Amino acid sequence: MTGEPRVDFRTHPRQYRHWRLAFDGPVATLTMDVDEQGGLVPGYELKLNSYDLGVDIELYDVVQRLRFEHPEVRTVVVTSGKEKIFCAGANIRMLAASPHPWKVNFCKFTNETRNGIEDASANSGQTYLAALNGTASGGGYELALACEHIMLIDDRSSAVSLPELPLLGVLPGTGGLTRVVDKRHVRRDRADYFSTKSEGLSGKKAVAWRLVDEAVPRAQWDEVVRQRAEELAGRSGRPAGATGIELTPLAKTATGEEISYEYVTARLDRSRGVAEITVTGPTPLAEGGAPPASLEGLHEQGAGFWTLAVARELDDLILDLRTNELELGTWVLRTQGDPAAVLAYDQFLLDNHDDWLANEIVLYLKRTLKRLDVTSRSLLALIEPGSCFAGSLLELALAADRSYMLSGVFEEIDPDATPATVTVGPANLGPLPMSNGLTRLQTRFLGDPDALAAADKRSGDALGAGDADGLGLITFAPDDIDWDEEVRIAIEERASFSPDALTGLEANYRFPGPETLETKIFGRLTAWQNWIFYRPNASGPGGALRKYGTGQRADFDRKRV
Amino acid sequence: MTGEPRVDFRTHPRQYRHWRLAFDGPVATLTMDVDEQGGLVPGYELKLNSYDLGVDIELYDVVQRLRFEHPEVRTVVVTSGKEKIFCAGANIRMLAASPHPWKVNFCKFTNETRNGIEDASANSGQTYLAALNGTASGGGYELALACEHIMLIDDRSSAVSLPELPLLGVLPGTGGLTRVVDKRHVRRDRADYFSTKSEGLSGKKAVAWRLVDEAVPRAQWDEVVRQRAEELAGRSGRPAGATGIELTPLAKTATGEEISYEYVTARLDRSRGVAEITVTGPTPLAEGGAPPASLEGLHEQGAGFWTLAVARELDDLILDLRTNELELGTWVLRTQGDPAAVLAYDQFLLDNHDDWLANEIVLYLKRTLKRLDVTSRSLLALIEPGSCFAGSLLELALAADRSYMLSGVFEEIDPDATPATVTVGPANLGPLPMSNGLTRLQTRFLGDPDALAAADKRSGDALGAGDADGLGLITFAPDDIDWDEEVRIAIEERASFSPDALTGLEANYRFPGPETLETKIFGRLTAWQNWIFYRPNASGPGGALRKYGTGQRADFDRKRV
Repeated sequence: MTGEPRVDFRTHPRQYRHWRLAFDGPVATLTMDVDEQGGLVPGYELKLNSYDLGVDIELYDVVQRLRFEHPEVRTVVVTSGKEKIFCAGANIRMLAASPHPWKVNFCKFTNETRNGIEDASANSGQTYLAALNGTASGGGYELALACEHIMLIDDRSSAVSLPELPLLGVLPGTGGLTRVVDKRHVRRDRADYFSTKSEGLSGKKAVAWRLVDEAVPRAQWDEVVRQRAEELAGRSGRPAGATGIELTPLAKTATGEEISYEYVTARLDRSRGVAEITVTGPTPLAEGGAPPASLEGLHEQGAGFWTLAVARELDDLILDLRTNELELGTWVLRTQGDPAAVLAYDQFLLDNHDDWLANEIVLYLKRTLKRLDVTSRSLLALIEPGSCFAGSLLELALAADRSYMLSGVFEEIDPDATPATVTVGPANLGPLPMSNGLTRLQTRFLGDPDALAAADKRSGDALGAGDADGLGLITFAPDDIDWDEEVRIAIEERASFSPDALTGLEANYRFPGPETLETKIFGRLTAWQNWIFYRPNASGPGGALRKYGTGQRADFDRKRV
Repeated sequence: MTGEPRVDFRTHPRQYRHWRLAFDGPVATLTMDVDEQGGLVPGYELKLNSYDLGVDIELYDVVQRLRFEHPEVRTVVVTSGKEKIFCAGANIRMLAASPHPWKVNFCKFTNETRNGIEDASANSGQTYLAALNGTASGGGYELALACEHIMLIDDRSSAVSLPELPLLGVLPGTGGLTRVVDKRHVRRDRADYFSTKSEGLSGKKAVAWRLVDEAVPRAQWDEVVRQRAEELAGRSGRPAGATGIELTPLAKTATGEEISYEYVTARLDRSRGVAEITVTGPTPLAEGGAPPASLEGLHEQGAGFWTLAVARELDDLILDLRTNELELGTWVLRTQGDPAAVLAYDQFLLDNHDDWLANEIVLYLKRTLKRLDVTSRSLLALIEPGSCFAGSLLELALAADRSYMLSGVFEEIDPDATPATVTVGPANLGPLPMSNGLTRLQTRFLGDPDALAAADKRSGDALGAGDADGLGLITFAPDDIDWDEEVRIAIEERASFSPDALTGLEANYRFPGPETLETKIFGRLTAWQNWIFYRPNASGPGGALRKYGTGQRADFDRKRV
């Protein structure tokens, strides 16, 4: 369960074991029907629609495909294929048997998927409706909380609950606490009571306390669910009659030393604890590269369109490395290609933001970059001759903990090279916000509006190292003489530090400024949960996670900390 | 070091071992000169102006006394009595030898003191100036970060630094990371570099990076510090010629079963893991009680004035129980007295908010209630006949995780009693904000402006259980028949849950809504630090905290989490 065998995040509806998808015009129904024997690793049965990472990988896949392959869908009804149970949350035996990094990674990924569900409802015209046709407990209720509207069947037995604290001695791991008070505005004392009552609440009381939006008797259930789904569909701005594009299988090759896709490669240097990631831009303009001449061209290219391909490849790589390469603690980010071509693709997407597919691609890139932001790896960007840190790809450097930009060229390698430049473009000025609601440039220049305005003013200019340094767009600009040593020291130092302290440092420094539901979930709730997961009261031999289901009580150290 | 012998937070300038205070008109100079042999517990020497809890207890005392006893002081210059070193931060051997709860409690208290320093600069006209006449590292620099203006001597050796990550494998424990990016707006990539560079930065570079406000050569040091202190003093609205009041010794008696003061008592029920805290209101109006007739009366009463006395007693009790009674996991909060008298004292203070002392008392009550909010104990308020949950004391019930209000009376105890009431007053509507910047009522009714307005509209009305329940001011309103069982179950349940999970739950539910520097420090930074402190990479036998100073390198588990 430590990542052996490697976890693969690529799947396809044909391979799903746990979810069924049905379509009725603008309404898709996503039915959770977990295969008890279909656990990702041996050792537990996925009873009562409980889930493990494998179940959530399928959920992530279906949410993505709905956005790209089914533009006609305006409402997604999430419901259960089991009797009396919607979903029992994360599988407890799986959690109890998992090492700490697995639990943390699992929670992070499930959080990202639920944030993605909210993003679809908010920005994509695909609204999620939780139709709880049975009890939703723990992570099951948290999945419902990520939906725009929650319906609970009123049958004297079905309830919503967060039993993690009373039964398992941990917190709900997927944003439940934050969404209860900050999204649904349940009064904090009621939230406290609710989260200590393992059987949860049902019916009218669940409605009165804002835990669900409505409780519907069984006799009217199907009809009211259908009505609500149609009402929500009516609100959507999705075009009628649009045709989706297929998210074709990623061309991925992986060896022990390299993972590569069409535009993204990662060299795995285990001795130094580094993954060297290179993102390649679109075909250079000078070689005839260019975005499609029309929207039709975009739709024809589909998954082959450069920005979408890069977002998918980066997304898969981030998930792969996060889960399977825990000891590669530093990711070095490089780009190569034609900055003007990157800017041209950005401009094409922004010029066509009214098109559902162009919109989806930008939203996907946004989510992928957010995934990078919350990745517990040190991120160093290296800006060298031949790179294309412009517009959307400049975001990689802005997401990094530090960036190094070569001043001049590598005299011994290519004295005639053109020195590297960075270019601020419209993609840096709004459409790709971080979880804190600010762009990476706004975050960088927090409290310094003059610096932000100065960078904005040079938008479109290919900035050399001196200018980029002067504008504060990069961290350091060493020349050829100092480059190797500065970069080497930065990487070696990083590998010598406490991995835990680096995680904490980066989690704090990457998100200054305003807080949102998302930053609260990743920044505050996750940190508490990590601590609680790690304490013997949860994970020790006598801890609540281990004792669950044994009939024995957990043996708690009673000291409050 | 687990609290045996009991830590006493009461001290007095006569007893200080580590700080000197000198006055020059409106400028006070607070000199840190730590007694190496003056550690609170044996086992370490406080070299290089490093500090432990004992040093910080004195700092807290002096900050409080400056506000009440020295109203003439407008600038507080914080400097060092040692050569070449301002302060080396928290003592590392002390940290390495301390059990986890001690480290967490220590960081919480030091954080509160630094927040109090910022509160004095922002709201009290006493501005803190950090005059770093030597290196300020770790907690030393964090103390400077809490000051309004930071001066660093420019002598080619003095620097500011946060060496916790590179040297100790932990985070700065007192808000450093948050203040660097969110208060001083150091660019996040520079903050990253700074926090991994153990020797820190000095001189012009420290200024350019916003880490300090100015670097001053030794030759001009005294003169420029004096100038800055006077400039800051000139900004203050403190009255000239005011006379302070003495913070007289608290009348406190403590046995193994009870801690009591004049207005506050706590019964310690170790078998149930409960501290039963009762706060007594001012003398009832019917018995001739009343706030002073004039401001002069307030100044004459000084520390005897009810609100100030209660704030001091609660403050001391919270610190005592937090540090010395780790296994009393639930605090039951009661009041007794005349609600009208509480409201009269509140009104007196608010009517006189232009008076420096009235202002200080309200600010102190605000800080004390904030201390309650961040206390890692479950808080249950019991609202019974004879109680006075009105205005400022209603805040105790609003701070609680839950409140129970008796509907009717205890028939067997006193059938003729007057049923309990709660009263919203002006003290609940602004002057006592939580760390999130909202009042406790605003926090309670987050996202529900109608409920907030309804409660506001009934301001001044003594509300019975039915009304209080209807308005959402309390959690539950059981009657005499159900009371004992409901309350008993609530308390017993709390004692049966994982103490760690409760801490995490409460830390998340108590602060919905907006985030501030303070909530980020207590909610996010603290949670990460707790996790890091607890991990073997820091605190295990081969961890960085234990290895520091041995010449050996820490033996890290390299997995990133």
